[in-house]
Amino acid sequence: MAGLSMRKQQTNAYACAMRRPTLHDVAARASVHPGTASRALNPRTRHLVSPVTARRVDRAARALGYRANPIARGLKTARTATVGLVLPDLTNPLFPPIVRGIEDALRPAGYSAWIVNTDNDPERERTLVDSLRSRHVDGLIVATARLDHPLLRETAAELPVVLVNRGTAEPGVSQVTPDDALGIEQAVRHLAGLGHRHVAHLAGPQDLSTGVERLRAYRRAVADLGLDDAPGLVERCGTWNEDEGAAATHRLLDSGLPCTAVCAGNDLLALGCYDALRERGLSCPRDVSVVGFNGMPFLDKLRPPLTTVRIPHHELGAEAARMLLAQLDDPDRHPRSVRLPPELIIRGSTRAPRS
Amino acid sequence: MAGLSMRKQQTNAYACAMRRPTLHDVAARASVHPGTASRALNPRTRHLVSPVTARRVDRAARALGYRANPIARGLKTARTATVGLVLPDLTNPLFPPIVRGIEDALRPAGYSAWIVNTDNDPERERTLVDSLRSRHVDGLIVATARLDHPLLRETAAELPVVLVNRGTAEPGVSQVTPDDALGIEQAVRHLAGLGHRHVAHLAGPQDLSTGVERLRAYRRAVADLGLDDAPGLVERCGTWNEDEGAAATHRLLDSGLPCTAVCAGNDLLALGCYDALRERGLSCPRDVSVVGFNGMPFLDKLRPPLTTVRIPHHELGAEAARMLLAQLDDPDRHPRSVRLPPELIIRGSTRAPRS
Repeated sequence: MAGLSMRKQQTNAYACAMRRPTLHDVAARASVHPGTASRALNPRTRHLVSPVTARRVDRAARALGYRANPIARGLKTARTATVGLVLPDLTNPLFPPIVRGIEDALRPAGYSAWIVNTDNDPERERTLVDSLRSRHVDGLIVATARLDHPLLRETAAELPVVLVNRGTAEPGVSQVTPDDALGIEQAVRHLAGLGHRHVAHLAGPQDLSTGVERLRAYRRAVADLGLDDAPGLVERCGTWNEDEGAAATHRLLDSGLPCTAVCAGNDLLALGCYDALRERGLSCPRDVSVVGFNGMPFLDKLRPPLTTVRIPHHELGAEAARMLLAQLDDPDRHPRSVRLPPELIIRGSTRAPRS
Repeated sequence: MAGLSMRKQQTNAYACAMRRPTLHDVAARASVHPGTASRALNPRTRHLVSPVTARRVDRAARALGYRANPIARGLKTARTATVGLVLPDLTNPLFPPIVRGIEDALRPAGYSAWIVNTDNDPERERTLVDSLRSRHVDGLIVATARLDHPLLRETAAELPVVLVNRGTAEPGVSQVTPDDALGIEQAVRHLAGLGHRHVAHLAGPQDLSTGVERLRAYRRAVADLGLDDAPGLVERCGTWNEDEGAAATHRLLDSGLPCTAVCAGNDLLALGCYDALRERGLSCPRDVSVVGFNGMPFLDKLRPPLTTVRIPHHELGAEAARMLLAQLDDPDRHPRSVRLPPELIIRGSTRAPRS
């Protein structure tokens, strides 16, 4: 009898090691009722369970390698935990690679992203964030951060939030941003190395971390390298788009200040600069050298191909997603800030000034 | 007394004409309990009401010009009815303008869009559509349609669905697509007019309406215009991206067939063609003319600027959104199919062949 019982125990242990983990295993590990575990793991009923419990069940399921019945629900549809992704302007080509990076990192963890587009409108942003929260997304990745941004602080107090690309001055929010200051320094140093002394800056919006940091880095580089620091060489743009870049370039040229190179705050401003130079009958790079910022797609096929600072957007997105997943796993994780280094890509839009 | 009562009545009528409509007015018009109307209009509780009822309340609210208490919920957040938007590949630059068109048309009606990205993966698409349906979106706009696509038929039977950009052979689904046949005919006619007799076609995926229709239109135009109809002049691409366009161009050049012009199935295939020509030391347009299709942004700044067929993507998106709103207003509306005309944009990538 004792022998039989022993064998039975061994068989059970063996079966347990070999068999797929069940819903009951997950429920036991998460210390919840199996019905609760089931509701948490089914996207149609997940909203009936508190977010904290849902995440505890997720962790247990992940730890055990649990998958819902693959025949009933399809291998890849076993879990559809959802992350909201808040973008400022989908038509800015830097965002699609960030989205791809985020999705590439979320997918293996069983998460997908719902993307909303705020069109840089704070009221619209609040509506969209409310709507995502009301449908119980597990967390948010936010690319619309402003320096002064109370909504972020409020939201981050209630569910995991990670910022991507733009940072905030609000305390307690995790962020993954490029090292903009290093990128701008590389750009200005490259122009100075070619012999440019009068380098203008098309500055971005000054309520965004990106706009502020790039302008500050430009000023520091100009000072460090002993270049012309006339205040008129900085032209501010209200938004990051081509029209603003063209208008700023026209103002710069109208000012009559000597200027042989333009360090644009981003690639779209640089493309607007291209347009304005063409309208004035000026040639890039013969008359004016231009450097962009971001390294958006297709710049190598432009006329002339645009020298730019390449930001690792895919990696920026992937890192933000990994950070959010870590926060979902451990809600008490301390917020952190990660900076990724950029890389200067030299192409045909920059050369030595005519002497 | 009678006089007083009359004045009171008049005052009430006056007050009623002037005052903002209330939740009770909406409930009365929709023939539901005020509590139901309130739940339907509040994004946090909308899922507690049946979709049919929610839409009836929406219609009543819209007819009366009702807005929820603007102080409590913010003027723009009065309603957050939501439409799911299913995209195949956010990094294809034709989609952001479609998204913008959709959002521009949804916004005045109080709707916002949740965007998901399927990466052209049918299983992922099913997961994402399930997840949107489980969170009670009001309807779907789908840009991932395949010719054979049972999921679409199933979904359209349960909630309003409109296809955008790509059509399907599944019955009973409304769609807004460009007139691809006309666009390709314009492109081939333009090349023939320049004197080209050997025009190749980089064909798109043959399980998509866009790939099939453009190939069919190319064949018809070649026949109508009496051009070289060698089968080897058609190279098929598995997906709509640059790498596939480059590989197809290399195969075409390896075939040794005479060919002085390429009619690419879309702009990204054309950009891949640019890359392959450059790798082979061939010049566009001197050695080979190239025409794209779609009119994605920034093509005018390429080297050489790409001649293309411009599809009105913003309007395509806006029309799809308007069609969905009409369907939400009248769930019994008959499905319909709208085609929008394209426009040939002639730029520097096409010229007469060398004689």
